[in-house]
Amino acid sequence: MKRLKSTIAYDGTNFEGYQIQPNGRTVQGELQSALNQLHKGSKVKVYASGRTDAGVHAAGQVIHFDTNLHIPPEKWPYAMHTKLPADIRILSVEEVPSSFHARFSVVQKEYRYKVWIGERQDVFQRHYTYFYPFKLNIASMEVAKQYLIGTHDFTSFCSSKTEIEDKVRTIYELDIYEEENVLVFRVVGNGFLYNMVRIIVGTLLDVGRGKINANNLTTILKEGNREQAGKTAPAHGLYLWNVVYNDN
Amino acid sequence: MKRLKSTIAYDGTNFEGYQIQPNGRTVQGELQSALNQLHKGSKVKVYASGRTDAGVHAAGQVIHFDTNLHIPPEKWPYAMHTKLPADIRILSVEEVPSSFHARFSVVQKEYRYKVWIGERQDVFQRHYTYFYPFKLNIASMEVAKQYLIGTHDFTSFCSSKTEIEDKVRTIYELDIYEEENVLVFRVVGNGFLYNMVRIIVGTLLDVGRGKINANNLTTILKEGNREQAGKTAPAHGLYLWNVVYNDN
Repeated sequence: MKRLKSTIAYDGTNFEGYQIQPNGRTVQGELQSALNQLHKGSKVKVYASGRTDAGVHAAGQVIHFDTNLHIPPEKWPYAMHTKLPADIRILSVEEVPSSFHARFSVVQKEYRYKVWIGERQDVFQRHYTYFYPFKLNIASMEVAKQYLIGTHDFTSFCSSKTEIEDKVRTIYELDIYEEENVLVFRVVGNGFLYNMVRIIVGTLLDVGRGKINANNLTTILKEGNREQAGKTAPAHGLYLWNVVYNDN
Repeated sequence: MKRLKSTIAYDGTNFEGYQIQPNGRTVQGELQSALNQLHKGSKVKVYASGRTDAGVHAAGQVIHFDTNLHIPPEKWPYAMHTKLPADIRILSVEEVPSSFHARFSVVQKEYRYKVWIGERQDVFQRHYTYFYPFKLNIASMEVAKQYLIGTHDFTSFCSSKTEIEDKVRTIYELDIYEEENVLVFRVVGNGFLYNMVRIIVGTLLDVGRGKINANNLTTILKEGNREQAGKTAPAHGLYLWNVVYNDN
């Protein structure tokens, strides 16, 4: 038995999210079904760095699974593509020690959130960017984001459904930059709570639009009340971009 | 009754092409159904600059229709968006003289064809660019394209199913340029035969790959044999980009 680590990309549009569920098409479900076929029906369990919600995309999700097949790592993407639907692509596969775990070994994650700020909606972007028709004051968003960088209790920036007790996380980097008609939010941290990136983006957009004062971010963080932060930005603008492990 | 000209965009992925048909979802079908609803059930016929095949996109298709509704032109896009699916967007609407005809008044059309030349396929591009994994010699494609510019009988560059007798067309411009990982073919002409742009692109790709000699293009044109030109490039890389009329 050897353990394989794989970096994958998927278009979240037609999935009910990453995690397998009794009804509905999921990324994990498709991955496991492809691997079960390659393993002639023996069940293979796939572990990911974390779940993504329905509509959320991945440019660099990481998974691991164990196998007894004698396929060289560089041939694995081809083998899996014969069984996978076109909206999941295997970017790379490598052998890792059995101590590696796609979820528990994560040391850093990067998400990107894409906002379409072109004058009008682009039909080809409708599943891949969030169309935001309001004028944004980027300077005040830059002020606001500074309060979020660093180690904080992010209780006000996660879904009230979050069950994890410890809501302290560290954001290492939070960049906001424009690429043609797309405003990109790039967030790098040691871990993220449920909906955290989408609430951060929703809050920064509210700041940019003038609905929340940039300097209120410190109070919003301190008071730990989800109601004070902005709306959760929609799923289809969000990309799990990169996952970093210790030995990478 | 007044005549309205409208520029529209659509994502061709989930359509069986532009033209209405008894079964299958079409752009014309959706447009007419939206307009019929706005006209309280009276049937409205929509005329386009031309058809597009299943999977082909439009960034600037032009249509016209007649209406007795008293909606100012600038409000029409909003009205139509309330009835249209998200994969068709109305970019603009203007009133035109009743002599205007979306198909018969065309003086020039522009198509673009996008080829993904990145090292590996991008899952987010799979419906919007044609993934071409082979190395291309752009210099020989530049030589080849020169033979196509100008007025020629394009019999070898149209589907053998083409029923139109006169196969002489003029190509004014044929540009090939790179935008990040996308090789764009931009073709401007006075009119195009069935599959003409896709066969031109397929042929130029065969030249770039070394399967057809660039200087053979003159013979291929002269002999008028579809078999000698390259393969028809797939639909999902093609965009009807712009349609020009006399008074624009």
